[in-house]
Amino acid sequence: MNLQSDVSVSEQVMANAIRVLAMDAVQAANSGHPGAPMGLADVATVLFNRFMRVDPAKDKWPDRDRFVMSAGHGSMLVYAINHLLGYDDMDMDQLRNFRQMGYRTAGHPEYGHAKGIETTTGPLGQGIATAVGMALAERMQNARFGDDLVDHYTYVIAGDGCLMEGISHEAIDFAGHMNLGRLILFWDDNKITIDGSTELSTSMDQQARFKAAGWHVQSVDGHHHDAIATAIEAARTNDKPSLIACRTVIGKGAPNKGGSHKVHGAPLGEEEIKATREVLNWPHPAFEIPAEVKSAWEAIAEKGARLRKSWEDRLEASPARDDFAKSNAAPDSAAVDSAMNAYKARLSADRPKVATRKASEMALEVVNATLPNMIGGSADLTGSNNTRTSAMRPVSRDDYSGDYIHYGIREHGMAAAMNGIALHGGFVPYGGTFLVFADYCRPAIRLSALMGVPVTYVMTHDSIGLGEDGPTHQPVETIASLRAIPNLCVIRPADAVEAAEAWQIAVVSGRTPTVLCLSRQGLPTLRTAHTDANMTARGAYVLREMPQRDVTLIATGSEVELALSAADILAQKGVQAAVVSAPSFELFNQQDAAYRAQVLGDAPRVGIEAAVRQSWGQILRPEDGFVGMVGFGASAPAPTLFEHFGITPQAAADTALALL
Amino acid sequence: MNLQSDVSVSEQVMANAIRVLAMDAVQAANSGHPGAPMGLADVATVLFNRFMRVDPAKDKWPDRDRFVMSAGHGSMLVYAINHLLGYDDMDMDQLRNFRQMGYRTAGHPEYGHAKGIETTTGPLGQGIATAVGMALAERMQNARFGDDLVDHYTYVIAGDGCLMEGISHEAIDFAGHMNLGRLILFWDDNKITIDGSTELSTSMDQQARFKAAGWHVQSVDGHHHDAIATAIEAARTNDKPSLIACRTVIGKGAPNKGGSHKVHGAPLGEEEIKATREVLNWPHPAFEIPAEVKSAWEAIAEKGARLRKSWEDRLEASPARDDFAKSNAAPDSAAVDSAMNAYKARLSADRPKVATRKASEMALEVVNATLPNMIGGSADLTGSNNTRTSAMRPVSRDDYSGDYIHYGIREHGMAAAMNGIALHGGFVPYGGTFLVFADYCRPAIRLSALMGVPVTYVMTHDSIGLGEDGPTHQPVETIASLRAIPNLCVIRPADAVEAAEAWQIAVVSGRTPTVLCLSRQGLPTLRTAHTDANMTARGAYVLREMPQRDVTLIATGSEVELALSAADILAQKGVQAAVVSAPSFELFNQQDAAYRAQVLGDAPRVGIEAAVRQSWGQILRPEDGFVGMVGFGASAPAPTLFEHFGITPQAAADTALALL
Repeated sequence: MNLQSDVSVSEQVMANAIRVLAMDAVQAANSGHPGAPMGLADVATVLFNRFMRVDPAKDKWPDRDRFVMSAGHGSMLVYAINHLLGYDDMDMDQLRNFRQMGYRTAGHPEYGHAKGIETTTGPLGQGIATAVGMALAERMQNARFGDDLVDHYTYVIAGDGCLMEGISHEAIDFAGHMNLGRLILFWDDNKITIDGSTELSTSMDQQARFKAAGWHVQSVDGHHHDAIATAIEAARTNDKPSLIACRTVIGKGAPNKGGSHKVHGAPLGEEEIKATREVLNWPHPAFEIPAEVKSAWEAIAEKGARLRKSWEDRLEASPARDDFAKSNAAPDSAAVDSAMNAYKARLSADRPKVATRKASEMALEVVNATLPNMIGGSADLTGSNNTRTSAMRPVSRDDYSGDYIHYGIREHGMAAAMNGIALHGGFVPYGGTFLVFADYCRPAIRLSALMGVPVTYVMTHDSIGLGEDGPTHQPVETIASLRAIPNLCVIRPADAVEAAEAWQIAVVSGRTPTVLCLSRQGLPTLRTAHTDANMTARGAYVLREMPQRDVTLIATGSEVELALSAADILAQKGVQAAVVSAPSFELFNQQDAAYRAQVLGDAPRVGIEAAVRQSWGQILRPEDGFVGMVGFGASAPAPTLFEHFGITPQAAADTALALL
Repeated sequence: MNLQSDVSVSEQVMANAIRVLAMDAVQAANSGHPGAPMGLADVATVLFNRFMRVDPAKDKWPDRDRFVMSAGHGSMLVYAINHLLGYDDMDMDQLRNFRQMGYRTAGHPEYGHAKGIETTTGPLGQGIATAVGMALAERMQNARFGDDLVDHYTYVIAGDGCLMEGISHEAIDFAGHMNLGRLILFWDDNKITIDGSTELSTSMDQQARFKAAGWHVQSVDGHHHDAIATAIEAARTNDKPSLIACRTVIGKGAPNKGGSHKVHGAPLGEEEIKATREVLNWPHPAFEIPAEVKSAWEAIAEKGARLRKSWEDRLEASPARDDFAKSNAAPDSAAVDSAMNAYKARLSADRPKVATRKASEMALEVVNATLPNMIGGSADLTGSNNTRTSAMRPVSRDDYSGDYIHYGIREHGMAAAMNGIALHGGFVPYGGTFLVFADYCRPAIRLSALMGVPVTYVMTHDSIGLGEDGPTHQPVETIASLRAIPNLCVIRPADAVEAAEAWQIAVVSGRTPTVLCLSRQGLPTLRTAHTDANMTARGAYVLREMPQRDVTLIATGSEVELALSAADILAQKGVQAAVVSAPSFELFNQQDAAYRAQVLGDAPRVGIEAAVRQSWGQILRPEDGFVGMVGFGASAPAPTLFEHFGITPQAAADTALALL
């Protein structure tokens, strides 16, 4: 399908409009990156003019093509295009105020700031890996709803930086393995990085590299419009994911600075801008686009609107209409609550002693039976993370109808792909690894939080309690480091009931991603009295109250059991110790002051967590006690380690006594 | 050079000794990974028996070959070999107590726990990337001292997991670019991951992938000794880095479980162990090695000792003897102190107003002129990180004599390579990126800290002060997340003097890595009275005292200037505000209680840092005030952002007044 417009303005002029807007906006901001948008203007113009299916009037149309600017520093390419297409939130005033407070035109494209931005980019490589998730979601949704309703492409533009970053390897390998034929990646092969020529730092044969990963590979002159179009057409019809290596001149159009790293991340300067206007034969003032040029771009939007309308007609006529709508809507929280409350009642009666990773699996059995669009997965630790429930089937290149993804040993790629799956819509993704390897996917977790994407990270083996694998595998600072990330909900359940409540929170969290920190070792059910109230959602609550508190023991996860034992020891000494379970500091911080004060009490406090103290500053005062880790762990059986590092009921009791 | 021993015991028996020790140790521990050591026993035996040059009696001999077990879960391979070679700290009792408290045989190989462990591995892919640093250091040292003194190989064993991880891409690309011909990587191509067959998660043509990166590639039957030897010989003589794809059977020797993922990470069980003994024709009890087998292995050590002695003779006769010794010794702290004190005196007189990233460069000019073996670098942000001083020359494949490394857009690979350079010895590495991208290299930073490797991370653009690049580039939680890592010294200098003192600390830090958090924006010199005392080394100190403190303002980095202005505002209202500069919380925590109490004082406190409050728990009490960030940043000029987020002198003064 070739959608070339019947327009009187040439594509070259359309492309030059991008160039001029980019250079003028960067100049006005006195900061930014003109090189990439100017170099990529031809590729982007051909892509949008002849292929892209988007409708600015309905920017969330589910079957739209996705466009991801992985080289996010080239954000002016996106803003210029979206302005020219006629997105109503991207008027010229936005471009004039590029990178200014209160405008949507942030230095890097920010998801949620403006329409038509499919994901936040800027940290290099993330766009590619997120797009892989989008393209996989498209195939998974297609497998469920067919070509009539789901039939779109994911286009990505990446630079040398994206392709040097490690995450690109994970994404490319995974995309090749999953044979994501509707993923088309343009490589802005301009031979320039910030430090200078790419020859300074890489000798990679990128085309051979992509072929090794099972991609379809082409190369074109990135300024030859028909060649670009021919390549895109071939990429679309090939059943493999496609790389189109576009040989470009960075800052194309700038006669003196184009082609050099000087144009990468700095304004051109008034003189060079004047010279560029002459080269491009563009006599118009800054931020003025001739009506016929704007019309040529708006014709793309008009085509998109027609396509969107005919898609809506198909949806209206489809027997799957309601199911499709449901799959794209927020998860049914009432159904989740109902199923979970019944399950919690059984738990409080059965009182299983299981690791919280196992309890997570048990809760997931309930969730996955309730919500039809859950997508599980693990970075090659399925049996350890307990992420695959009984009815789940693998997603594969031969069968996208499954609901469990073997992400491989690719934590970073998994996290970014989950972002992409969630951003695409239609699915609620979760994925597992060991908690300590949160470090391997931290940049993508940060983006989950920054974008407000409700993915769930199932992080097991959450302390020295994992035992013999030793300090490389034992998270001591990881929980604190995750609690530091804004808009990330970290939950460390103490037993099967809290694990159920944690999932109840996670799957309907809306605009907040969740990290579940789960034990390897077995833990008894502590919440033996059933209540429909989700106590975990309070963040912390009094698990054992005392008529007159002498001390309050506050613990999380596997250490809550320990706190109860410590309270027993203290009771024998006539000391009244209340025990607070605090599964989520973020949720606790959201409670009102009165509730917080009631839970924490006035007595001296002892925090207990097999981790560093750092993140306890809002709960513990400097004079309060803490039982936890001060350095890295060691390799030994878990009970030995808790003894060795002094994380025991006796140590907690002694710490409490020392405070009194 | 083929070093095959003249021994009566066959290499097959030597290899079987590894297999049996591995399976028995895992069985005794009732946890661990027998599959990899058993599958790799042949490759490792051929490598050690015919090629490796190590001397267990002098495990730190500088010109030894390096062996890195990147697939660290196969640690029993290392322990078995090191026992058989006769390392005096690896007696049979260590193997009997694999993964037990107090023994050197941790679940994964831990640098510093036992001799012959060149780096800590376990987090997958780190071993490869660290080895790249070692191999580069070998070439750099060779360029300085010649073949007589520096002429060794770096051998790495990696599994499928290592090659799926993104960091492997960064390492492989960089190694190919640098043409590290003495780096030889064995890929344990056993087609098995934890979840099952590699077909579940990857379709990568690994050999083509390595060729694309400029590597020499071979494949062999990983159980055919002569074929392995021939491949190693070819790899050693080829001038490119080499991949040897070794087709192996995981758990080779175990008749029922071998070749399946069941043998990856669980003990074989008594029955299978018995069956394996029969298959291997190994009638000896657990943890007993026949004398002739031990002798065959010890012959390797004897060869190594002879080679080491002749190397020592060459060193003794070399005119470069003293320089070589100096380059391998700890940096000359007296020389650094002397140069830095003179420089600091100039600073206090000149009082430059510069960004601390620039101040870092100025300090580095002093350091690099004083220490001949500093190795700088940046992940493609040289001009932004200010990491290249005036006399530095790039290291390249054509000239390893340089001292500045263009790491490319590979933060993770850079960090791991710096670990490798430091572990190799001979150099003091530092490398730069933006602070927010600490997340991209966090797993390698964690290993710097866990191993106690004194590398320095130059992290610039350390707050919303970077301005227009926006929230993806603005670290708000990054400083806290780094302070959470044990044995990592985070320093955020306030001015040029503190930046100088920070470098003075970092380059002689011994067993602690350092992260410097540096501003993009200009900052005045605040320490205008010179003292030789390194005040930054105290972690925090009173910059402006008051006769009677009403409040103490405590700030770091760019916010110290702001605190001084706030104190001026308060003074106008008759409030006496002391100002504390707190460049390093870790160093402050190491001070005695009296000093800490004197600095912090009894008055109400206001912390000021353009970041989240989390890591301030040891300095601020819950009732104290904090002026900083509570969420992500935004894209706008820096002054607008500080105003927008309320991080201003007036806000700090108001916070103080509210406390009084």
